[in-house]
Order: sequence, then C-alpha cells, then structure tokens
Amino acid sequence: MTGQTSTTPFCAAIDWGTTNLRVWLLDRTGAVLGERASGEGMRACMPDRFETVMESHLAALGAAPDLPVIVAGMAGARGGWREAPYLTAPVGLYALHAGAVVVPHASRDVRILPGICQRLPGREDVMRGEETQLAGAVAGGLTDGLVCLPGTHSKWAAIEAGRLVSFTTFMTGELFAVIGGHTILKDTLGEGGFAPADPAFRGGVADMLAEGAALTGRLFSLRAASLLLGPAAPDPRARLSGLLIGAEIAAARAAQGLDREVGLVASGLQAELYGTALDLAGFRCQTLDGAALVRRGLHDAARALWG
Amino acid sequence: MTGQTSTTPFCAAIDWGTTNLRVWLLDRTGAVLGERASGEGMRACMPDRFETVMESHLAALGAAPDLPVIVAGMAGARGGWREAPYLTAPVGLYALHAGAVVVPHASRDVRILPGICQRLPGREDVMRGEETQLAGAVAGGLTDGLVCLPGTHSKWAAIEAGRLVSFTTFMTGELFAVIGGHTILKDTLGEGGFAPADPAFRGGVADMLAEGAALTGRLFSLRAASLLLGPAAPDPRARLSGLLIGAEIAAARAAQGLDREVGLVASGLQAELYGTALDLAGFRCQTLDGAALVRRGLHDAARALWG
Repeated sequence: MTGQTSTTPFCAAIDWGTTNLRVWLLDRTGAVLGERASGEGMRACMPDRFETVMESHLAALGAAPDLPVIVAGMAGARGGWREAPYLTAPVGLYALHAGAVVVPHASRDVRILPGICQRLPGREDVMRGEETQLAGAVAGGLTDGLVCLPGTHSKWAAIEAGRLVSFTTFMTGELFAVIGGHTILKDTLGEGGFAPADPAFRGGVADMLAEGAALTGRLFSLRAASLLLGPAAPDPRARLSGLLIGAEIAAARAAQGLDREVGLVASGLQAELYGTALDLAGFRCQTLDGAALVRRGLHDAARALWG
Repeated sequence: MTGQTSTTPFCAAIDWGTTNLRVWLLDRTGAVLGERASGEGMRACMPDRFETVMESHLAALGAAPDLPVIVAGMAGARGGWREAPYLTAPVGLYALHAGAVVVPHASRDVRILPGICQRLPGREDVMRGEETQLAGAVAGGLTDGLVCLPGTHSKWAAIEAGRLVSFTTFMTGELFAVIGGHTILKDTLGEGGFAPADPAFRGGVADMLAEGAALTGRLFSLRAASLLLGPAAPDPRARLSGLLIGAEIAAARAAQGLDREVGLVASGLQAELYGTALDLAGFRCQTLDGAALVRRGLHDAARALWG
C-alpha cells in the first residue's frame, strides 16, 4: 500500500441510485481526479441505456477505454442494469467485492457490487448502495457502532467487528411526505420550512421518546391544535417532523441501547434535525459525509478486485 | 317516564356526518317510526343547502311541519350548517343538550348538539358525532369504561361516572389508505381482502403489542418480504392492517391499562379485526351498535329539551 497520490486513473467509481448518479475518476490511493453528477438514476434508465449513460460520463472525464468501473446502488437491482444478488446479513462489510457481478458484453470491465438483505421474519429488509457507504465507514475505521442514514427511507445499521449485524429501514421521510400531501392534515401542514430549534420539533421528538407507541395517536392532534389554537398552535410541520424522527430514534434506542456512538450520514438541515433528536435521546453522534463514504467503499472494492 | 310505545312522532333525529346522513322519526320512548339514509353528508351540502336537504327527508317521512329536530355531527362544524361550539373534556355526557345551538330562521325548531374538544398540549383533539354515540352508551348504562370507535380516524374514549375524561384519535384507517395508495408499498399491498384469522394480521398486531414504537420501522419490511419471499411472504395488506390496529391498541393499553372493558362500536369485518386484536392485547370487549347509540343519544337530548 502506498501513501503517494498519483494522477493516473486507477478506476472509475459510480454510485448509481434510484434518482441520481455520481461518477468519480479515482487514482490508486482513492484520490479524486474527476467527478460528474447527473439525474440519470435507475428510474431514468431503461436496462439498455445504462452503458450509454456511463460511457458518456466517462468520455466527459477523459477516461481510457479500458479503465475498469466499479458500481454500487440500484443499477444492481432486479430491473436495473444487471442484477447483483443480495448478500444476507449478518455479513462482513470488508468483502463486498466478492459478491460483485460482471456486466456481460460491456466494452470494458464493469462490476456491480451486491446489496444486502435481512431475512428475519417480520423484519425482512433490503439495502442497495448504503452497504457500500457502510463498507467505506468500516474501511475508515468505524468497525463497531450504529450508523443512521436518514432519508426517504432512513436506515439504521448495527456494525460489529466490521460486520453488518442487522439493519432496519424506517419510512420516515416518505411518511412525512404522504401525511403532508395526502391526508386530512394536508391543509394543516402547509409547505413552510422550520428550524431544529423550533420547540414544536423538539416537543414532537420528546413525546415519541417518552411514548413511541403513541405515534398514530398523535398525528390528528396537529389538526386539532390548529382548529383549537389557530396561529398559536405549534408549527405543525416541525411537530410532525419531530414525531416521525422521534419515533425512529425511540425505536432504534429501544432495540440498540445507548452505549454505541451513532455515525450520522447526513448534511445540512437533515443533519441538524437528526443531530438535535439524537442528542435529546441521549445518543453520542458524529456526522459522516455520505459521498466520501460510498467513494471509499467503492475504491476499497476496486483495490480488492484489481490490485 | 313512560314505558309505552306510541305511534306519535315526538321528534326527528339526524346523524349528519361528513359523508353520510341518517334521519329517524322517533316517538317519546325512542322507538323508530321511520328512517332515511343518504350520501348528502356535510361535504355534499353548501351551508344554504342543509335545510332543503333536511326538509326533503322529513317530507318523505311524513313529518309534521312543526316536529322538532335534533342533530348531531358535522352539521355543527364551522363551515357546516350552524356552528355548535365544542364543549371541553372532561365533560358530562348526560347533558350535551345544554350545549345545543338553535338553527336561526329555520321553519321549525332545529337544535344541533355540540362536539367535544380536548385542550391538553400536544394531545389536542376534537370529535363531532361520536360524543352523541358516547352519550347514548352512557344513557344505556355504560357509565365507566373505554369505548373504541374504529374508522378512518379511530377514537378511543375513557368514560368515568358518565363523563368523558379524555380521548385520542388514531389516524389508523387513513394511514392504511395512504400507505397503500401513495407510498412505495402501493404495488406490494395490492387491493385484496383478508380475514382476521390471517396469521399475517395477527402477527402484525402481536409485533406492535410487543414493541409499538417500532411501527415506522416495520412498514418497509412488507416490501422487503415480498422481494425476498415472493408469494410465500405473509399477506402484506393483512400485516399492515395488523401493524396499524396493533399500534393503536398498544398505545391505548399503555395509556389506559387493561382493567376496564372496551365497548367496541363497529360491525362486520371491522368488528372482527378489532375484536381479534383487542383479544390478543388482553382486553375484554363487547360490541356496540353505532347507529343505535347515536339514536339513543339524540333521543336523550331531545327528551331533555322538549320533555
């Protein structure tokens, strides 16, 4: 292993999600030599479009025609570019490359990393893309701990000795969207922003930490408070966000305890909201950069595959 | 008070909900002399249409032009026929008539019963129509206990000495609908029916009774189970129903304990599902007829107003 940075591309690394695509040109050390991002996620790509899309970005980056490519994310889903079957948790995060599939008939060496599934009855779960972020975190030294990846579908992962032991997906972001967009609360919630310091957000979190089972019995109170208190009611969007994030963190705390630090893969407002709520719950937490993690996980797999 | 049934109409009683309308002609003892039902709920009635709709049903029932009318439900909401301001819980259920408002300028004596609100911070809540069912239950002897009124917005009411002490609205039915109609689970859930005996339903209830806080972390498993197990996965609609009803009952049990019998205001499949889940939770329960309850509550108020 060398500590030197060179300017020779070693591989291209792609994080190919449902809605977005990021491409990096990396040298042997993992340093970034070039970068592209676009909205050509899996949803925008018919199965026969993936290679064309990839090659256009590689050409724009000036990649040689034989530069190998390592891919993580939804490109490996059924109905994506080429299915990379799930590994099953518990599973080591240091050897994702061993489950990589080769894309057949491509003009260069393209490997897609597998997702990970969990087969516990009633707790079945799947991830694609996050496992590579987790592998990047493990490569970076986080071999034991919890990792929280907030989003439309928040994921909590428990890592022990570099292995993904178990994980849970919370539909926090999607519930926030459908409750705000498609229920009787639509008019109550409106569309404004709010800050993590809003007492309505903190109160929602605190309520769920105190009695997480009550979530579905606290939603209607947003409307009732608006009816009864008018403009004096707590900001309903902030409170709904607090209730949903609080429910997620309460469940994670009940399942995992407080003894391990949480790696929070988030930025901006989302990092502030989750940071505030994790703090209220008594978790220690450090914020991690999701793009850096997936890049490191991809690079780690590429080094294992191609030296 | 007379035990005799006469055939002389004493009043008309109307349960005027958001989507439906029921009208009864009652004698002094509460016996039903005539009945009408229609879809002309509050949502279908502009404020100036209520009287016309009411008179058309009363004419069809052959009611005299001076027969008084007692109304419960959304007709008394702001934006309904005439606002009947909320009473505030805790409040006696034997004296709803004292909060009735007279509809001005009507061609006959029409009174609308008030709804009830709860002003506990973070647990604000409102009901309109259910309070009259609860008054009917109290008039029928249920002066202490819990009442569960399942539906789009399930309500749980705690009654002590004929007073409504507190209540909670759970968005159980509406969450079932939006999760099935507007989230990533849409395709997974499909549209089929299921039975209360389905292990998927019972398992969902049991999971929430064991760890109610985990609700938002169990939804995605419906999709993952379908991906991983295919047709061998538990019926996702049954399991989602079990998870949501289980979460509701777990929260009610945590708040109220198991020592009081639950009056379950439901019929058909809904009564079976809630009965199954209440039984799994350890509640004793008896099923009550919602239409009979509201009619009794209306009659009771009419007797208090007009002798």
